[in-house]
Amino acid sequence: MPVSAGKVSVPAPVLKRLPRYLHYLQARKQEGMERISSTVISADLGLNPVQVRKDLAYVTDSGKPRTGFSVDELVRDLSAFLGHGSVKDAVLVGAGHMGTTLLAYGGFAGYGLNILAAFDVREELIGTEICGKPIFPLKRLSEMTERLCASIGIITVPAEAAQAVCDGLVAGGVQAVWNFAPVHLEVPENIIVQNEDIASSLALLSNRLAERNGR
Amino acid sequence: MPVSAGKVSVPAPVLKRLPRYLHYLQARKQEGMERISSTVISADLGLNPVQVRKDLAYVTDSGKPRTGFSVDELVRDLSAFLGHGSVKDAVLVGAGHMGTTLLAYGGFAGYGLNILAAFDVREELIGTEICGKPIFPLKRLSEMTERLCASIGIITVPAEAAQAVCDGLVAGGVQAVWNFAPVHLEVPENIIVQNEDIASSLALLSNRLAERNGR
Repeated sequence: MPVSAGKVSVPAPVLKRLPRYLHYLQARKQEGMERISSTVISADLGLNPVQVRKDLAYVTDSGKPRTGFSVDELVRDLSAFLGHGSVKDAVLVGAGHMGTTLLAYGGFAGYGLNILAAFDVREELIGTEICGKPIFPLKRLSEMTERLCASIGIITVPAEAAQAVCDGLVAGGVQAVWNFAPVHLEVPENIIVQNEDIASSLALLSNRLAERNGR
Repeated sequence: MPVSAGKVSVPAPVLKRLPRYLHYLQARKQEGMERISSTVISADLGLNPVQVRKDLAYVTDSGKPRTGFSVDELVRDLSAFLGHGSVKDAVLVGAGHMGTTLLAYGGFAGYGLNILAAFDVREELIGTEICGKPIFPLKRLSEMTERLCASIGIITVPAEAAQAVCDGLVAGGVQAVWNFAPVHLEVPENIIVQNEDIASSLALLSNRLAERNGR
């Protein structure tokens, strides 16, 4: 049975691990595995068993002391939790490579994200579709965002264009900005900004590698 | 003066924040700002001032109690730290949208990453270049990775192809795998895997939005 997501506040590090459990368990399910223990999960994913048990306790109460988890139930509870009550309509700005990657990503629906449309400055893209999503001119950003009632704005434009795009999204009424441009955005206090900075991940990877090699 | 990076182990959350400070400070430098306090930085970035002071202490000892930091020195120390001793050659597998996003990203050099070449299965791409990087056939992955002495393998292929590509990279001698495919990879114990899962970020964003709206 899924744990009611409304009751508890799940810490960010836990939330970030949940999709990893889901991918892993979906693969086990496809292989026909029926039950699994937190010990096996932790060993395969290189995590601490206590952490795995705590993490999964946020989303399911289906674990049993001796027989572990039903893979099926765990996949269902994780999916339910991750998509829970959060089907959000979004618009995307910047239909370049990164933008197209996101438009083409099939997995978002499972997480409650629905990209309605994209915006770009390039004339040749206007009126076309990318992965079934219509491309509108950037100058209509605020108006269309408001009309579409999009609550999330996704920014995949170059750094120097990001702040103006962000302002346009906020004017159009979004509640949250998912920012892929490597720049710090200024927003009103009530707007959530989540930055995806590929350089942050690279800094982490480089450091792990340097530490392993004794620098 | 930069703090010697070899002496201390920098925690992952700190490492992930460093590029954000760098982007922010580069913008201030461009505006002509000469000195800045940790209080201003923390207010602008929405972080705790104590955390900002602790974070920056990992990379610089240039802060002064009353006058704060020299923007110039801070940019230099952060850049030095993030690129420190870690110029790594990499190969990328999967020259689709995500792969091209990474090949086109101009910011990697500053973090010590040099993508030498890419691999793909699509015949029409072989022998061409994307952003100046040559595209080789996937069947030559292990051989070329070894010949190029690449220490990092970047995986931007669909989930179902990722494990085979990972095995090819490991056979070619990489020390680390940067995985953008939404799948759990099996690797020998001595190989570092860093997973970039766009769905993890989305789970986090959805949750912040749901919490803000009282679910």
